[in-house]
Amino acid sequence: MPRFVYDFAEGDRDRKDLLGGKGANLAEMTNLGLPVPPGFIITTQACRAYLAEGTEPSGMGDEVTEHLGRLEAVMGRRLGDPDDPLLVSVRSGAKFSMPGMMETVLNVGLNDASVHALAERAGDERFAWDSYRRLVQMFGATVLGIGSEQFSAVVEEAKTAKGARDDLDLDARDVESLVDTFKAIVRTHAGRDFPQDPREQLDLAVRAVFDSWNSPRAHVYRRQERIPADLGTAVSVVSMVFGNLGMASGTGVAFTRDPASGARGVYGDYLQNAQGEDVVAGIRNTRPLTDLEALDKVSYDRLMDIMTTLERHYRDLCDIEFTIERGTLWMLQTRVGKRTAAAAFTIATQLVDEGMIDLDEALRRVTGAQLANLMFPRFDRDAEKKLLTTGMNASPGAAVGAAVFDSATAVARRRRGERVVLVRRETNPDDLDGMIAADGILTSRGGRTSHAAVVARGMGKTAVCGADELDVDGAARRFTTADGVEVGEGETISIDGTNGEVYLGQVPVVASPVVSWFEGTRPETAGRECVGDDLVDAVARLMRHADGRRRLRVRANADTADDAARARRFGAEGIGLCRTEHMFLGERRELVERLVLAETRDEREESLAALLPMQIEDFTALFRAMEGLPVTIRLLDPPLHEFLPDLTELSVEVALARERGASDPVREELLTAVRRLHEQNPMLGLRGVRLGIAVPGLFAMQVRAITRAAAALVIDGVAVQPEIMVPLVGTVQELASVAVEIAAVVAEPESRVDGDPVPHQVGTMIELPRAAVVAAQIAETAEFFSFGTNDLTQTTWGLSRDDVESSFFSDYLEQGIFSVSPFESLDVEGVGYLVRLGAEQGRRTRPDLELGVCGEHGGDPDSVHFFHEVGLDYVSCSPYRVPVARLEAGRAALPPVT
Amino acid sequence: MPRFVYDFAEGDRDRKDLLGGKGANLAEMTNLGLPVPPGFIITTQACRAYLAEGTEPSGMGDEVTEHLGRLEAVMGRRLGDPDDPLLVSVRSGAKFSMPGMMETVLNVGLNDASVHALAERAGDERFAWDSYRRLVQMFGATVLGIGSEQFSAVVEEAKTAKGARDDLDLDARDVESLVDTFKAIVRTHAGRDFPQDPREQLDLAVRAVFDSWNSPRAHVYRRQERIPADLGTAVSVVSMVFGNLGMASGTGVAFTRDPASGARGVYGDYLQNAQGEDVVAGIRNTRPLTDLEALDKVSYDRLMDIMTTLERHYRDLCDIEFTIERGTLWMLQTRVGKRTAAAAFTIATQLVDEGMIDLDEALRRVTGAQLANLMFPRFDRDAEKKLLTTGMNASPGAAVGAAVFDSATAVARRRRGERVVLVRRETNPDDLDGMIAADGILTSRGGRTSHAAVVARGMGKTAVCGADELDVDGAARRFTTADGVEVGEGETISIDGTNGEVYLGQVPVVASPVVSWFEGTRPETAGRECVGDDLVDAVARLMRHADGRRRLRVRANADTADDAARARRFGAEGIGLCRTEHMFLGERRELVERLVLAETRDEREESLAALLPMQIEDFTALFRAMEGLPVTIRLLDPPLHEFLPDLTELSVEVALARERGASDPVREELLTAVRRLHEQNPMLGLRGVRLGIAVPGLFAMQVRAITRAAAALVIDGVAVQPEIMVPLVGTVQELASVAVEIAAVVAEPESRVDGDPVPHQVGTMIELPRAAVVAAQIAETAEFFSFGTNDLTQTTWGLSRDDVESSFFSDYLEQGIFSVSPFESLDVEGVGYLVRLGAEQGRRTRPDLELGVCGEHGGDPDSVHFFHEVGLDYVSCSPYRVPVARLEAGRAALPPVT
Repeated sequence: MPRFVYDFAEGDRDRKDLLGGKGANLAEMTNLGLPVPPGFIITTQACRAYLAEGTEPSGMGDEVTEHLGRLEAVMGRRLGDPDDPLLVSVRSGAKFSMPGMMETVLNVGLNDASVHALAERAGDERFAWDSYRRLVQMFGATVLGIGSEQFSAVVEEAKTAKGARDDLDLDARDVESLVDTFKAIVRTHAGRDFPQDPREQLDLAVRAVFDSWNSPRAHVYRRQERIPADLGTAVSVVSMVFGNLGMASGTGVAFTRDPASGARGVYGDYLQNAQGEDVVAGIRNTRPLTDLEALDKVSYDRLMDIMTTLERHYRDLCDIEFTIERGTLWMLQTRVGKRTAAAAFTIATQLVDEGMIDLDEALRRVTGAQLANLMFPRFDRDAEKKLLTTGMNASPGAAVGAAVFDSATAVARRRRGERVVLVRRETNPDDLDGMIAADGILTSRGGRTSHAAVVARGMGKTAVCGADELDVDGAARRFTTADGVEVGEGETISIDGTNGEVYLGQVPVVASPVVSWFEGTRPETAGRECVGDDLVDAVARLMRHADGRRRLRVRANADTADDAARARRFGAEGIGLCRTEHMFLGERRELVERLVLAETRDEREESLAALLPMQIEDFTALFRAMEGLPVTIRLLDPPLHEFLPDLTELSVEVALARERGASDPVREELLTAVRRLHEQNPMLGLRGVRLGIAVPGLFAMQVRAITRAAAALVIDGVAVQPEIMVPLVGTVQELASVAVEIAAVVAEPESRVDGDPVPHQVGTMIELPRAAVVAAQIAETAEFFSFGTNDLTQTTWGLSRDDVESSFFSDYLEQGIFSVSPFESLDVEGVGYLVRLGAEQGRRTRPDLELGVCGEHGGDPDSVHFFHEVGLDYVSCSPYRVPVARLEAGRAALPPVT
Repeated sequence: MPRFVYDFAEGDRDRKDLLGGKGANLAEMTNLGLPVPPGFIITTQACRAYLAEGTEPSGMGDEVTEHLGRLEAVMGRRLGDPDDPLLVSVRSGAKFSMPGMMETVLNVGLNDASVHALAERAGDERFAWDSYRRLVQMFGATVLGIGSEQFSAVVEEAKTAKGARDDLDLDARDVESLVDTFKAIVRTHAGRDFPQDPREQLDLAVRAVFDSWNSPRAHVYRRQERIPADLGTAVSVVSMVFGNLGMASGTGVAFTRDPASGARGVYGDYLQNAQGEDVVAGIRNTRPLTDLEALDKVSYDRLMDIMTTLERHYRDLCDIEFTIERGTLWMLQTRVGKRTAAAAFTIATQLVDEGMIDLDEALRRVTGAQLANLMFPRFDRDAEKKLLTTGMNASPGAAVGAAVFDSATAVARRRRGERVVLVRRETNPDDLDGMIAADGILTSRGGRTSHAAVVARGMGKTAVCGADELDVDGAARRFTTADGVEVGEGETISIDGTNGEVYLGQVPVVASPVVSWFEGTRPETAGRECVGDDLVDAVARLMRHADGRRRLRVRANADTADDAARARRFGAEGIGLCRTEHMFLGERRELVERLVLAETRDEREESLAALLPMQIEDFTALFRAMEGLPVTIRLLDPPLHEFLPDLTELSVEVALARERGASDPVREELLTAVRRLHEQNPMLGLRGVRLGIAVPGLFAMQVRAITRAAAALVIDGVAVQPEIMVPLVGTVQELASVAVEIAAVVAEPESRVDGDPVPHQVGTMIELPRAAVVAAQIAETAEFFSFGTNDLTQTTWGLSRDDVESSFFSDYLEQGIFSVSPFESLDVEGVGYLVRLGAEQGRRTRPDLELGVCGEHGGDPDSVHFFHEVGLDYVSCSPYRVPVARLEAGRAALPPVT
């Protein structure tokens, strides 16, 4: 027979499974000898049994009786004793905190008789009736399911009738009368009287807490937070202490360090003559906790001691709730406290310096998400702002600039030294120049996985997307808010990618000191042992420790020498993905368009010959920036349509020209070609290696540029490690066919150094489910694999990244079908299975096969842990994500906590 | 040490791996005591060693010397003996027949001296010089790599100089002079003299045969036929016999039964005074083999005896090559002969009746592809035809009808009783009515996997696709051929889906007797023991045997009661896929469009209410047609764009209307909505279960129609087994969400019979890689899986079925990257891995999980074997493919041959 009830003294903090978080910590404090009001815990197992059977498990009632009896003995009072009643609170407490999701009932044990005894004992009649009122109200709402507004309306009426400003203006008689009215409400709405039997009150309150596990809002919360649905909640039954017994009583919350900055000191709030829910409800203004020293020095000193004890015991920042009942301090709750990103880093290193934890443990206590958070510039919190609208926080940071509505204007203004924010209904690859020129991107359509958001995150640019109240009129060069405010080209706006807010005018920005340090413009306090609250020092120490621990190497996705140089400053150990299609936009796009549309070999050769010197220049710059480190270059992989005019726009243009009698044969012919090449699903069409095979000479030209650039540099004494990557391979035959072409180019004299081939590797992306499945075959030809988890996610799920966000994706996230977009954090069960399979199969054929990942996921903290676990050699991500990946790679490599 | 050389008497037909097909069969005939010219075989192992090392393996030369010595002893002549030379042929012979791919050299052993001895021995000087001429020519071309045209040009010159019509008009002196010229050509082009040493001739010829394994054309052939590249070829060295020693000599080919019809009798051709290559070259007209009886009764009778022996020995139709040298019969080759589909069925049952094989073996000897072939109507071979053009043979059969250029006209003419052929540049789902009305479909774009081809095959309609020389002008209602022939609406054309030919006018059609039998319009000769050449009897017997053997059930993909009824006649055991989107085309399309575009709940409900009774009617008809059998209904799964106007067309329309000052606000608003819902990649967009979740009430309406139709029928005493199938599920959460909605509908009173839920199952398609990976989870909710191998192929390969054919697909097939389209025959390595994984994982959770497949592959012979092997319960395919699937399912279940 399992036990269903534990006294506080019987538990400890490691039994959150059974006792819930709140209960386990109350037990821990009890065992530390701290002043916790006595009580007991009904276990989550009892809850699970109750929910399964619809009734309390046999034996539970008797155990409650036994523990209640012991509690009564300790307290010297009996529950509901009409002469000196014991009162208890009944609180939920699950393994994982679910704030506000479940129920609490205070003052259980009061009834028509004992209320008088309480009044007498407290020497405060109003207090006693108010306690009873609270019980009837909480019980009615929580246990009997009566809407709280029924009760609060009555209170408001009473206050109005009396002209009272505050609850405290109601006197004992007023409150007593409220109790009568509340009991009548119970009778009317629940069809039963408020139970006078204290044990019935207790049992029904416990049931109500159990039942609250299955409330709809709890279900939704758990689904969103991926908390298992079958854990159940524990119930704490705690003897009541009262902070509302006059001005020598009170209640407060406190942190052992500043949860905002991590600074050492006393942080908290205190409210005299109040109960906990009054603090939460914000009915009256709290006072800083330091004021308590003057009000009640004994309790204050005791509290300071307890906080030191707790922090040393938990070896971490704790937050606590306490109550002072007529000069006696009681601890009502503690837990390891939430904190900001900055505080997390600062506190972790402080605790190391204080000898409480080691560096491994410190590293466990910070996250890549927190680091990423610290890397964004922010708007000055205190500045005045005029909010225009709020969209999705698609890419964090703070950007200020002139609103511009097209790419060309963005580039032009940027060249004049202006800062600009590009405003579009949505973006597409043609906007890339404008996005590069802009400090921020604002769109009225699409969300966190739209083109604008993905590209902006990749570039580390601030973006607010899907601000759907905005009417963006690109042609008129203005947008209009829901309130009718018009903002035209050149007007300054400020966008906050961290919360999605858009402001009119310039809001002052605070730069990230952490980025300044990475960039080398702010030196770390090198040499001296750092001891303090300095955030940059803390980050630097933990980054160094992470680098020492990690096994995964971190590379960057970079297409230009500038990006590569920045990535290196951020610690990148090579380029894991150079997307050559990004080299073909802007002025060169036309060459590619001509190449794709070429109908004769001569036309094709001409375009290729024009592109070769440009590509040699591209790769030379890139190799120089990454001297001595590997550079993985993906051969051209555009969806075809990105290099062709839009079919719909061109069709309209040609139709209008015909209508006007001004047909242009060149445009007509172009339309025919575009129609011929148009694909229903370009993502599943003529791309990657397929394009390389369909357009003879294209890949050879790129490989020629790579090997010639590399050979020239080697001759100049520059170390290069080019890795040639073939995209979208589904079968080894495709790769083998391209490998033959590559070998022929490598054999050309200009690709050689002293007659030997320039050092290089040939490998492939694994970005189709089939490639993962037949990886053992592909590894016969490939010298390295790079998992393209963006495309692999698209095909594994059958979801287009470009399309889904605008339609059902948000429904899915809301309904908890997705807990997070699989494009943001790797879907370990589905896509991860294929990554693992591909890695295992590939290494089976070629044990030294180099394995990396170059999707967006390479910089996602959760995903980095998975990639470490699967045994990849490196992750590659956007330059701004490199520090995040380094940190998480270090955390992933930490030994398990024993 | 392996042996590299075998005498004929040492081999047998089971050692094709080592001896090649030709060699093994020569050995077999030798051991049967048949008159085979003595010889020996150099093994494939010797070839492999030679190709790996670049030189003959050590010991091979000595073995050749030894076997040659033995051959010389048997023949009583020595190779190249100037007084009485032994001549040999050197022929390639790989494990798998590679006709025309590799090399042969005849008359090895002749030189300037022995040619005189041969002349003397044959008593025919011209014969001897001509044999020498052939040797120099073959040796020059094959061994020394000199273009054959060099030699043939000289022969032509000699003939012209003499005014000769025929080679035979050149006399001995002419031919002797040709030999001199040929030797000079060898000296000039090869830089060496024609070798006079007979052994050197032999060794070089053997090397040349070895080398020919790696010729480019052999590579291409093997890649296309998926013959492993590392098998190598064997070499047969056979003493020469001569069919060209006068009119008592000759050469011929024969079949033991008619390879066209399977009829018993004597089939073959004979040519007097000729060698084998003369027959192949078609220089002179052959005579029917039966004529040989009059010419040389002894040889003829001997040949008939040998053919009977071979057929009894091989227990199958054999084809043979023979030579008669001055009245002596020699067997040069035999093998199991190729035959037509009709002959395959007829001969297999004949052999059963003749006691040579059992029914299992007979079933092994016919294929689903052959059965499919027999089910198509054909054009009368002998009719006169005017060919217009040739396209791709996209869906076999023969169709004749008036050319029509749009769906409405097709339907209208069909209603008037006319037969029509729908001609389009390409088709889309809107053409479905027209395709149903038409007898055949002709398109100028797209290929075997285009919409037109896939749908046509599904319907069993004839289609020729991608006839790209045609200029189809739909607006002008005509097409124009490359020669400028114009064909307008209403003109009769005939299209042959079996060879892709398109004819002007009506070509007479012959119906398939096999289909007539399935349809019940031609009775099988039931009851009597069938003995003969009757094709329908043969098919019927083998179908019955297959049905008795098979474990896989066969269902049909059918969306209408008519299709269902036909499928039942073809032996379907239920419906495996009813595509409800096909119920929403035509007049109902507008309702769906309104539903998808609905912005309010009321608009949506209105559309759903209008659709419900229609759907009830649809399902009632379907359930009735399939009374007693399961019917799997897939909830709506269209790519969204198929129900919306085309963005480009609508954009042009609206732009033109604006230009003309005639804007229509309704169309403008529609354009806005279509733009909003437009997807870059609809195949990866808002489809299947995503649509069901995004459009509340849609799936509930369909489920309501299914359960109400079923309940009403059950009450009427009709047995129904509806299976509700949710499409495009990627995670169990999606399915669970829909399952809740289904359960609610099932609980409605109208869905019940006597208060109980109507019998039904809820399951899902497995058509995304992720679904296969997490199948164990999905099976917690799904009661059945149906593998949607079309979509699974698209996502596993990242290939859109609609798009690929028009671009690089043909390149891939030509280059051997694909040996067959993965949409036609299941890609067992890639997609098959996921099918197997899904099946195993699903059954792990739910051992009685019903597993089926409903892609195009369900009717593909090779794929059926895979589905049997993986342990699926059924395959589902288009009605016309049901007999094919039944036959192949029976074949798949046959015990292995021991």
